[in-house]
Amino acid sequence: SLDSVMDKKIKDVLNRLEYSPSPVSKKLSCTSVKSQGRLASCPAGMTVTGCACGYGCGSWDVQGGTTCHCQCSVMDWTTARCCYLA
Amino acid sequence: SLDSVMDKKIKDVLNRLEYSPSPVSKKLSCTSVKSQGRLASCPAGMTVTGCACGYGCGSWDVQGGTTCHCQCSVMDWTTARCCYLA
Amino acid sequence: SLDSVMDKKIKDVLNRLEYSPSPVSKKLSCTSVKSQGRLASCPAGMTVTGCACGYGCGSWDVQGGTTCHCQCSVMDWTTARCCYLA
Repeated sequence: SLDSVMDKKIKDVLNRLEYSPSPVSKKLSCTSVKSQGRLASCPAGMTVTGCACGYGCGSWDVQGGTTCHCQCSVMDWTTARCCYLA
Repeated sequence: SLDSVMDKKIKDVLNRLEYSPSPVSKKLSCTSVKSQGRLASCPAGMTVTGCACGYGCGSWDVQGGTTCHCQCSVMDWTTARCCYLA
Repeated sequence: SLDSVMDKKIKDVLNRLEYSPSPVSKKLSCTSVKSQGRLASCPAGMTVTGCACGYGCGSWDVQGGTTCHCQCSVMDWTTARCCYLA
């Protein structure tokens, strides 16, 4: 019938144009990266959401969006909390 | 007209195949969870992006992706900063 | 041909209904906002994922979802780590 012809036709066009009914929904995914010393960097594609430091230090900054820098005078380790949309 | 017949036909097919014009765009949503002691956990479905600790302590780690653990020797409270895509 | 007529017709309907083949995929984007004193706020549309404080202080809380508050008695600067889906 004309109906089924049109049905099929429309689906073909949609497929060819790669229309997806429901695009895959993303999730927030995070991991920690710990390093010796006062710098810790996230893997490529991830960004820093927070940092932890040794010696109870809570003074840090983020360099280049991906590297935690712990500022206290004496420092033994730094952890970057790294997140991205998976 | 043929035009309006086709118009209607195409929309019916799209609806049946659940194509949505603009999929609901997600937002980053965060909340804090504070607990006594040295552990604080995010609700299911959320992940830790950072932690705060009592006694000015900035040394923490994340256990299992959802639990903040404050490491300083004496500890009275822990807060987990928890985020997800809403 | 009927084929190309229908092709064109379907694409017109899709455009008019603003169907997008592949909705732009979002990325997690973060920045730091540093202020003097014990408060630092994220720009509108962004949310706090973590905070850093002066004097090595790791005790902070988040007020209203967008403002870092450093709790230690003496405080010179506060940094909010602010993120959103770009």
